[in-house]
Amino acid sequence: MGNVIVAQSGGPTVAINASLAGVIEGTIGSNYDKIYGSINGILGIRDDNIIDLSSIVASDPHFLKRLKTTPAMYLGSCRFKLPAIDSGDPIYNTLFEQFNKYQIEAFFYIGGNDSMDTVDKLSAYAAQIGSDIRFVGVPKTVDNDLCVTDHTPGFGSAAKYIATSTMEVIFDAQIYDNPSVTIIEVMGRDAGWLTAATSLAKTECCDGPDLIYLPEVAFDKEKFIQDVKSILGEKTNVVVAVSEGIRDAQGEYISASTGTLDNFGHAQLSGAGKTLEYLVKDKLGVKVRSIEVNVLQRAAAHMSSLTDINESEAIGKKAVDIAEEGVTGAMVTMERISNAPYEIKFDYAKIHDIANEAKEVPQDWINPEHNGVTKDMLMYLRPLVIGLPDVEYRDGLPVFVTR
Amino acid sequence: MGNVIVAQSGGPTVAINASLAGVIEGTIGSNYDKIYGSINGILGIRDDNIIDLSSIVASDPHFLKRLKTTPAMYLGSCRFKLPAIDSGDPIYNTLFEQFNKYQIEAFFYIGGNDSMDTVDKLSAYAAQIGSDIRFVGVPKTVDNDLCVTDHTPGFGSAAKYIATSTMEVIFDAQIYDNPSVTIIEVMGRDAGWLTAATSLAKTECCDGPDLIYLPEVAFDKEKFIQDVKSILGEKTNVVVAVSEGIRDAQGEYISASTGTLDNFGHAQLSGAGKTLEYLVKDKLGVKVRSIEVNVLQRAAAHMSSLTDINESEAIGKKAVDIAEEGVTGAMVTMERISNAPYEIKFDYAKIHDIANEAKEVPQDWINPEHNGVTKDMLMYLRPLVIGLPDVEYRDGLPVFVTR
Repeated sequence: MGNVIVAQSGGPTVAINASLAGVIEGTIGSNYDKIYGSINGILGIRDDNIIDLSSIVASDPHFLKRLKTTPAMYLGSCRFKLPAIDSGDPIYNTLFEQFNKYQIEAFFYIGGNDSMDTVDKLSAYAAQIGSDIRFVGVPKTVDNDLCVTDHTPGFGSAAKYIATSTMEVIFDAQIYDNPSVTIIEVMGRDAGWLTAATSLAKTECCDGPDLIYLPEVAFDKEKFIQDVKSILGEKTNVVVAVSEGIRDAQGEYISASTGTLDNFGHAQLSGAGKTLEYLVKDKLGVKVRSIEVNVLQRAAAHMSSLTDINESEAIGKKAVDIAEEGVTGAMVTMERISNAPYEIKFDYAKIHDIANEAKEVPQDWINPEHNGVTKDMLMYLRPLVIGLPDVEYRDGLPVFVTR
Repeated sequence: MGNVIVAQSGGPTVAINASLAGVIEGTIGSNYDKIYGSINGILGIRDDNIIDLSSIVASDPHFLKRLKTTPAMYLGSCRFKLPAIDSGDPIYNTLFEQFNKYQIEAFFYIGGNDSMDTVDKLSAYAAQIGSDIRFVGVPKTVDNDLCVTDHTPGFGSAAKYIATSTMEVIFDAQIYDNPSVTIIEVMGRDAGWLTAATSLAKTECCDGPDLIYLPEVAFDKEKFIQDVKSILGEKTNVVVAVSEGIRDAQGEYISASTGTLDNFGHAQLSGAGKTLEYLVKDKLGVKVRSIEVNVLQRAAAHMSSLTDINESEAIGKKAVDIAEEGVTGAMVTMERISNAPYEIKFDYAKIHDIANEAKEVPQDWINPEHNGVTKDMLMYLRPLVIGLPDVEYRDGLPVFVTR
């Protein structure tokens, strides 16, 4: 048989390189010959910026193990959406000429929604021109908002980092005997999964956040102040977790908009947490601070979930398996067979059924007061954060791999 | 012999409970009988809010091990400065009556400058009234700005978390092939030690931050923009580390109102990082973001330094030793005997020689361009971040102890 090529795209997570390791390992155990890597997503194929991963693996015995726990993207990323396949754009011709040049029989794209759209279009184009190159998507997103799959690679690690950091912030918040409010702002513009993960901080040694607000329900400022006031009547130090994407009943973000748009036309949010900090200060006059968990929630490889890293690797291997079986235009998925003991079945689904639909937190996993999550949410989250991968350290700092 | 009492004060670190564990362990191996804990610093003694630590240790075999890696303060904190000993304030009488009631022979105060001031005053008052109770200070501060001691407990762990997070942010920043600037803002209003710790992120797999600005030298906005521009000529993704406390030649903080109002009409105040983000956007028009490492740098027990935790524990034990030897009005210190192999000698110094002086980064550990640190700084920092303590996990989350 011929060769395969793999690329990564979209925003980083700490598990996307574990999926790359999985694709490489899957290829090594397959009938495919070489595995190539395309630099900066699909653009590396277009621009002939391609590296030979097989020879890197052969020359560095530590490579795959270190790659598994390296954050972000070894191959680099891109934000590039393919034009419609009937657009007449020459890029399709360029890409398939490149596939022929490198004798590619399967292309694996590790990424989010945009990458799945690329896989969908390339497989449709292949069908149109009679090419039998396989196109398989390997999902990743810290946001956990992809449909069909039980959860997404990258989410469990972000959830573990967020839950652990929330617990540590709660310990930090408890030291003084004076009333205080601490607001933790978590990523998630439309889906509240990451913010919900703060609920995991409730353990035998920690109360967890006292209030949790997700973007799936309209945020009511008056009710929020009443909620905080009520908890302040019971305990000294109140900790609140909010999603960056909370909106009021009119759909307006609870944040000071800077009025500027980012490179993709999204409105720049300047902090739901900061906004609520000012609100609490104004209305309750109590000591208050806000903490933005920030980019570390998707980058903190040192606090990733072993379950997530192992699943991300397995999903990469599965992608190679199904390509060998002849599947194309599909994304690898996870189905939860049982929760205790936790068991996952790896499967796949046609990408056409997945793209452009976001999976929100179900309303019945949010408490009736709209300021917390239910036991169902906790049961869903718990297995995803178990274990710490064996990150290698040298001189006290992690050892990662770079190109 | 009689009993001892211990308290914690000031801002939290992840190592201050290791020192508490050390004081407890030191007492167990000493001629002292019981060890009491005062809740919320010295206020617990005044208000008779005192717990029996000996019985907690006796009843929970996991207590000391878990305490060693629990962040913040098990006994709670306070911000309370004793009045002058000749003020006639009745608090001194109250405190010494309490010491008598609990048959206290030694008081250990784990904390920063204010706590050392308390130890100084109590020992002076004891001398005045002819009491032979021993008062010993156990230092802690993430800022590393105490004199006499080579470094302070708590600093190594914060340095390790900051260096690791910086490395992870750098990986996150490198994925796109488009120019970008990432600004990391680190704690340290007057001393640049924590910001300097970002330099540890330079390893075989990581460039480290390209530019580092400390508060010990005046910050020049024009030169900063020239520095960034120059690096952008060499590489695509530039990462800058700045101390929250950077000031211009006139001593004014480099942080300002952004000119935007939040939903409640407040001007949004921003830190040094945010201010430089706007400056870079304005002057260079390049993609830029800023990241505030925030409270997690002093709370992230999951990424603490084993060296720091062990030293913090040892320094607690040393405090009990010197109290037994009759020392009072002193703070335990560390002297670096050698750097390779790293060797520390625990000693003590009269608090009167230490208080109210801050240890800044030496000018000759800052590079001549004022945008980085020298090899001497790296050699000083490296041994302090070695090792990870054995944090216990249950269901994927750390197991800490609370009262």
